[in-house]
Amino acid sequence: MTLRCGDSELGRDFLAARLPNYDLEGVLSAVNERQIIEYIAALAGPADARLIKGIGDDCAVIQKDGRQVWLLTMDTLIEGVHFNTAYHPPEKLGRKAVSVNVSDIAAMGGRPLFVLLSVGMLKAFDESWFQAFARGLTDACRDYGCFLIGGDTVASPQGFNCTLTVIGEAEAERVVYRSGARVGDTIWVSGSLGSAAAGLELLHRGIELGNAAFVSFQEQHLNPRARVELGSSLGASGLVHAMMDLSDGLATDLAHLCKQSGIGARLVARNLPGVAALAEAARLCGTDPEQWAIGGGEDYELLFTASPDHQFCLLELGRQCGLALSPVGTIVAGEGVTLIRQRPDGTSEEVAIAYQGFDHFRNREGR
Amino acid sequence: MTLRCGDSELGRDFLAARLPNYDLEGVLSAVNERQIIEYIAALAGPADARLIKGIGDDCAVIQKDGRQVWLLTMDTLIEGVHFNTAYHPPEKLGRKAVSVNVSDIAAMGGRPLFVLLSVGMLKAFDESWFQAFARGLTDACRDYGCFLIGGDTVASPQGFNCTLTVIGEAEAERVVYRSGARVGDTIWVSGSLGSAAAGLELLHRGIELGNAAFVSFQEQHLNPRARVELGSSLGASGLVHAMMDLSDGLATDLAHLCKQSGIGARLVARNLPGVAALAEAARLCGTDPEQWAIGGGEDYELLFTASPDHQFCLLELGRQCGLALSPVGTIVAGEGVTLIRQRPDGTSEEVAIAYQGFDHFRNREGR
Repeated sequence: MTLRCGDSELGRDFLAARLPNYDLEGVLSAVNERQIIEYIAALAGPADARLIKGIGDDCAVIQKDGRQVWLLTMDTLIEGVHFNTAYHPPEKLGRKAVSVNVSDIAAMGGRPLFVLLSVGMLKAFDESWFQAFARGLTDACRDYGCFLIGGDTVASPQGFNCTLTVIGEAEAERVVYRSGARVGDTIWVSGSLGSAAAGLELLHRGIELGNAAFVSFQEQHLNPRARVELGSSLGASGLVHAMMDLSDGLATDLAHLCKQSGIGARLVARNLPGVAALAEAARLCGTDPEQWAIGGGEDYELLFTASPDHQFCLLELGRQCGLALSPVGTIVAGEGVTLIRQRPDGTSEEVAIAYQGFDHFRNREGR
Repeated sequence: MTLRCGDSELGRDFLAARLPNYDLEGVLSAVNERQIIEYIAALAGPADARLIKGIGDDCAVIQKDGRQVWLLTMDTLIEGVHFNTAYHPPEKLGRKAVSVNVSDIAAMGGRPLFVLLSVGMLKAFDESWFQAFARGLTDACRDYGCFLIGGDTVASPQGFNCTLTVIGEAEAERVVYRSGARVGDTIWVSGSLGSAAAGLELLHRGIELGNAAFVSFQEQHLNPRARVELGSSLGASGLVHAMMDLSDGLATDLAHLCKQSGIGARLVARNLPGVAALAEAARLCGTDPEQWAIGGGEDYELLFTASPDHQFCLLELGRQCGLALSPVGTIVAGEGVTLIRQRPDGTSEEVAIAYQGFDHFRNREGR
């Protein structure tokens, strides 16, 4: 994703738990990350004619030739913010660093080609740890069909961090932007929501029950897979009006899509896929599984909109890619994102969840 | 520069002085950064046919169309390693972040087009500081004729860091690699050597005399300029066999060029440009100005080789770009880099300085 805050899925609790020695006062009262991005975007000014899309989508899009475009994305992972080496095996971290970037390429309907890597590490680093990280990274590149072609290596006295740039390609006419959603579109997500957030919480609390579902939640945090085949199929189908990947949580990401498209969205809580499967983990963690699904982040599933006429076609495309696709709501006129959910008394309510969805929920539940 | 250690110009003293609270034990005994790069390059394996040059030059080179290529480079700056906010104005830091990347594009004979930026910062960051950084960065982009098109924003609990990817373009036939140096070639550098290292030392020691030379040395560290016009002219001239930018110091960078070209180099100390001008600063800092010129790093001048027949042509090209060019040595058969210098008794000696040049000097001088 382009110039977003890569850590908003983690938030204050995560930082406070993992960085007890750092001053987090004023952390969330600082300038909102979206304002940072808007500030930078305004400074960047008008660009070269070959730039088709700059700041504000999953990737920047550059004209390559008459028919094809390059897609460019960049994501950073920082020790203590995005991962904890106490439970993140280096090989999976290397894989994840590739996947979170490739996910942005997939979200535009493209395929990844080339990777640049900048690593910062203690000079007195653990050589075997780094080698496992590098193996995971290059193995993931091979799996996705892309290649490491360069980068930088620097000392980082306070821990490991890595930034990747991934360059992908797509047919110019098949690129799917965030800005194309239309009133009346069905909102879709691939796979399940909230499992990465559940996995992170289980790992953080050291809960290991050998439960297969729990293992898969943890794996979703440690080693997510980018939906390249699905993104490419959806782009090629020409059926999809808007698309992005889910990295900051459905409530925040859908709000970005709505803002870019100039419309609003209404989600239906009972249609959110995967919530039921989160129940036991949520009970153990003392949280609400719906919170994970709406605001958890790091799903790396695809979020897209299409005319309701194409429901069966889309379900079949998903099936061919081995992924369940779920219609979770509708694009509406206006702005913002709301969620329709049942109250315990059986009546329903519609609550605003755009951007702040996760916090709204916390407030509403009195937590 | 592609997958190099961006901090080797600074070394243990720099880290120890700036990071008194961090454990630097074993810092320089850890695996050599070049070994890291070679390890990663071996894992990366064979690549796509569109990749013309991967790890090991200033930029990766990708085929764009029959006539043109894209050049890609990535460099990271980390607080406390590459810069000190106590004396580095944010606007100049933003400019420098662009310049050190654009310098890699210039070193292949290309022109910069697009920039991706990933910034990591304290959430409780100083908003006006960041805005000045962003202004400097976007102003520098404008000066170099390139545009910020995307990136990432993350929390970095231990301080500010930024990684840039710059995409440039060049005529495929005019790209100059590190690997083309030939025995008998004259070795050239643009501008002066060692002034950035002198400036850093003056800043670090808080020496501010209002001396115009000292101010220019400090400016060279705080706000270096990439030699885009010169690099582009040299590439277009077809006269240059090998080229790279000087970021890690002449002794180290020339050793990289020699290794890539499969030859050796012999430098002549009295021909190194700018050493005399460093004398007063060196006296105040208790160091040898030649050490700064050979091993200081961050010059961001161009280092290149060409047939000795083209001396006047090259001097004229430099003049047109407003830069003095100096022949500093000769490419020889064999391997390694040596420096011919006069002893105090008037006799001359030839010492090996490849990679470890700076340390060799320190040892020889008994420091």
